[in-house]
Amino acid sequence: MRISILGGGGFLGRKLAGRLAHDGKLGGSAVASLTLFDLAAPPGQAAPFPVMTVGGDLVDLPSEAIPEGTDVIFHLAAVVSAQAEQDYDLGRRVNLRGTDTVVDACRRLVAGGGKPPRVVFTSSVASFSGGQETVLADDARQVPANSYGAQKAAAELMLADASRRGFLDAVSIRLPTVIVRPGRPNRAASSFFSAIAREPLLGLPADLPVPDNFAAWVCSPRRAVDWLLHAATMDTTRMGLDRSINPPGLSTTIAQLLRAVDDVRPGASGLVRRVEDKEIAGIVGLWPPAFEAIRARTLGFASHEPIAEVIRAFVQDDLETTRIERGLPPPGG
Amino acid sequence: MRISILGGGGFLGRKLAGRLAHDGKLGGSAVASLTLFDLAAPPGQAAPFPVMTVGGDLVDLPSEAIPEGTDVIFHLAAVVSAQAEQDYDLGRRVNLRGTDTVVDACRRLVAGGGKPPRVVFTSSVASFSGGQETVLADDARQVPANSYGAQKAAAELMLADASRRGFLDAVSIRLPTVIVRPGRPNRAASSFFSAIAREPLLGLPADLPVPDNFAAWVCSPRRAVDWLLHAATMDTTRMGLDRSINPPGLSTTIAQLLRAVDDVRPGASGLVRRVEDKEIAGIVGLWPPAFEAIRARTLGFASHEPIAEVIRAFVQDDLETTRIERGLPPPGG
Repeated sequence: MRISILGGGGFLGRKLAGRLAHDGKLGGSAVASLTLFDLAAPPGQAAPFPVMTVGGDLVDLPSEAIPEGTDVIFHLAAVVSAQAEQDYDLGRRVNLRGTDTVVDACRRLVAGGGKPPRVVFTSSVASFSGGQETVLADDARQVPANSYGAQKAAAELMLADASRRGFLDAVSIRLPTVIVRPGRPNRAASSFFSAIAREPLLGLPADLPVPDNFAAWVCSPRRAVDWLLHAATMDTTRMGLDRSINPPGLSTTIAQLLRAVDDVRPGASGLVRRVEDKEIAGIVGLWPPAFEAIRARTLGFASHEPIAEVIRAFVQDDLETTRIERGLPPPGG
Repeated sequence: MRISILGGGGFLGRKLAGRLAHDGKLGGSAVASLTLFDLAAPPGQAAPFPVMTVGGDLVDLPSEAIPEGTDVIFHLAAVVSAQAEQDYDLGRRVNLRGTDTVVDACRRLVAGGGKPPRVVFTSSVASFSGGQETVLADDARQVPANSYGAQKAAAELMLADASRRGFLDAVSIRLPTVIVRPGRPNRAASSFFSAIAREPLLGLPADLPVPDNFAAWVCSPRRAVDWLLHAATMDTTRMGLDRSINPPGLSTTIAQLLRAVDDVRPGASGLVRRVEDKEIAGIVGLWPPAFEAIRARTLGFASHEPIAEVIRAFVQDDLETTRIERGLPPPGG
């Protein structure tokens, strides 16, 4: 099994690479090689199989990023929500033309006699709109309220069409907001969802731009990686023309999230400051807070764990690394 | 009112130009100028206002195609269904990147101090899929079964997003199959819907690749032009984020269509030959044959006339011109 991760230097890409290295196999087959591609060549990954790292521009994709014989491509490379909103040209270029480039790379593999590679694409809850009362059915239409979501929805259409034509074999997963992200805030409009857990657990303040009763559709990095791996080897003939999945995420309010933070570190949520931000609230306020996600369950996508477990997993997996990377003192130190 | 028609040399573009020339105004305002753009500069149009014609590549759009001060752009330029299926690169280039080019031209008008121009875009019933039993609700999801439809659906997303951002002010009309087209068969998979009426009325044979009880969602050129003109001046604030319209077309079977042909020229439908074509039937067989189209009616789009009137309008408007253009003898001659 030859695998490429586009966006292999990002948070999810690194988690995924780590998991593949740990497992040594994917869907029962041994991993033969792993290629990590990102704007700058990602750091290597210790693994029981060869790992190549490639840097470059997605739209001018180096052929080594998707080598001959590639079976599975995880396409996670993207310009995120707030950035795509600020820089229209950059978002359109990377999120749309970048996906065309992936399609073309797959066409070359097929033209060279290869099997259409499985492409696992991370689309987003941001491709939908709906108020706080919404529970989206599986056949709900994407009416995006931000450029990132529009570009993701358009890319899904291109990948589904390329699948129908036999250029590749796509599964697009419309990821919920992934929490808790380690590191520092990024330019996703949803960055605060992670910050209000991560920063207080590090003993640092964080700004909350929405009310405490605000509900969001979230998932943990562990579950997101499970879904990506399932999508990589599932039977896609059951999907028909519709190659997009609303995975079974978790609907949580800010208050529930903060309670889970306090369970781990009592009083930590006192570090969260209520600071109105109309731009951020305007973007995330239109993302639906809940989905039915029946089709995903039928297709074998794992159900989500409760919010308390999400916070505990962050503490186990990422808190210490984040502390060290950011040069912060040890807890109670 | 300054108007541009991209695809101004095509069938609908010429009908639209003719209608604007006849009316001299649009939505109550006098037309100040009309620019017709197509791959080759379209023929001029006699009109009570200046008419410019421009030829060129949509993706490398000459600035004269959308001059400064343009108020309304009819974006009808496209690579049609069967052709987009045969030539993936060409379809993607024109149908997707071409639309990006239109967005960018509008951004330049706005950057230069202009008002976001109204863009009336012709999307298509081909962006949906569904069997012969389907009646599509207004909020039905686009799950295209052909590249043309996928590209149109993606272009709709881009235009809706550009509207939200204030680059332009789009209305996308998902046109039914337009019948009866004059001239000769073209490379649209739906070409036969026109041919089985037009050719027998000219005394010529035509091939029918689907059964007589096959149902289709159609509209007349007259009604399509009415919808385009309505979309050009309607109040778009009532549309919210959703800039796409399923217009109130007509659901007709082949048998009903042929009966209407025989009403005009008794026995003419005897010239229709049943010739199976799996490729064509495979494409059009997945286009839904009926839509609810409630939102369109609420937004003021005109209801459709019966099929008999569609055939009579073709005889009135286009039969004689087609006969002359194709060098055919006069009826009974």
